[in-house]
Amino acid sequence: MAETAREIADELRERIRSGDLAPGARLPGEPALVKKHGVAKETARRALMLLVSEGLAVRRKGSGTYVREFQPIRRVANRRLSQETWGAGRAIWSADIGERPMTVTELRVYEAPAPDDVARILDLEEGAAVVVRDRLFTVEGEPVQAAVSYLSADLVRESAIAQEDTGPGGTYARLAELGAKPVRFVEELRSRMPSQEETERLHLTEGTPVVEIYRTALTEDGRPVEVNRMLLDAGVYVMEYHITG
Amino acid sequence: MAETAREIADELRERIRSGDLAPGARLPGEPALVKKHGVAKETARRALMLLVSEGLAVRRKGSGTYVREFQPIRRVANRRLSQETWGAGRAIWSADIGERPMTVTELRVYEAPAPDDVARILDLEEGAAVVVRDRLFTVEGEPVQAAVSYLSADLVRESAIAQEDTGPGGTYARLAELGAKPVRFVEELRSRMPSQEETERLHLTEGTPVVEIYRTALTEDGRPVEVNRMLLDAGVYVMEYHITG
Repeated sequence: MAETAREIADELRERIRSGDLAPGARLPGEPALVKKHGVAKETARRALMLLVSEGLAVRRKGSGTYVREFQPIRRVANRRLSQETWGAGRAIWSADIGERPMTVTELRVYEAPAPDDVARILDLEEGAAVVVRDRLFTVEGEPVQAAVSYLSADLVRESAIAQEDTGPGGTYARLAELGAKPVRFVEELRSRMPSQEETERLHLTEGTPVVEIYRTALTEDGRPVEVNRMLLDAGVYVMEYHITG
Repeated sequence: MAETAREIADELRERIRSGDLAPGARLPGEPALVKKHGVAKETARRALMLLVSEGLAVRRKGSGTYVREFQPIRRVANRRLSQETWGAGRAIWSADIGERPMTVTELRVYEAPAPDDVARILDLEEGAAVVVRDRLFTVEGEPVQAAVSYLSADLVRESAIAQEDTGPGGTYARLAELGAKPVRFVEELRSRMPSQEETERLHLTEGTPVVEIYRTALTEDGRPVEVNRMLLDAGVYVMEYHITG
């Protein structure tokens, strides 16, 4: 009996897991699968699409289907602690950031009414003015993360935070000068499929979710002074957190 | 000119964002879209599928397409800190856990050779024996998380950790008795689309990614004593982390 698309996908998946088909390798094409398994072209196509929809493979137009390469960027939320507690070579997923510099592009800084959820988190009145810093992070020219920061305009309007160049030490150094130094952070994460607009902005490949992170910066007395909404290409990021019990 | 599937999807997406179509609401069906927009049935179908693939809507067989409900479970990695620093009503995504108890099902405890990545993290020889605790967490009968813990068999084999019931205080209390009390934790997260097997185990709906978390528990002197690999239904979880700057 001829195999089903799922059985063929199972076989290819096992070859990917075992390393027989390495990251970046080209998967057998439809004609090769048709010949090997004696199935219809449509069945071969569906087998490959199953692997794409699982995020294990990516299609390249006019070229074929390839094993997805996952050489992630490691995002360490509490980098200072990480140096002490977690030696080299211990991570589950190896990562290569440090070798590939991250660049800020498409920076826009402007004043606008706070979105409802941001106003609530920042303890502002509905529609109060915020300074918005909207930018895209790229690695080797490819977008990997979009980030939008919101800060009370009353607090930061006169500082360099409202300028494109925030100066030495960046936003947090300026907040400290304004008597609002952030010392604690809360990050809320969820993961979901992207909208079409997000897919285009981050150049996401098929079958790639996004990780949405809201990071709130709090002062010593618990005052929320910044909300940063980040949208990460889940195909290139590993997030790391260090927790003291 | 008749609208495209994408234009119809844009319109429905806007109605979902604005709240006009609330979480759980039924979206207009194919016949209604055909009539309203003067398009082919196939175009209406593709418009709805676009929203499903974005994770904004879910299909129910023989019933229609509905706005996805996102009433997440909040997973707070460092719960002790969270009480002090983050008051009620401040979260971006509201969550209802606490009202819906989580149940452990399908618990299996057994000894096996350590998978390569686990052996590396636990500083064990290749293929060394580990005690494996494999279980599924459900809420209201629905699976939300699969978790597999690995601990050195030489360390825990004689303790209740190797039994189904780990006793009062659980695994960490037993580890403390063995002189291996965990005091620090590292969590590595990534998000990706699930395999077919994972989709079935977690009863995932279409367009739902998974969040994969490896949590390593370390003793005071930095010795890794447990690795817990968790697989979360991204459609029902918000992860929260508290970070001290």
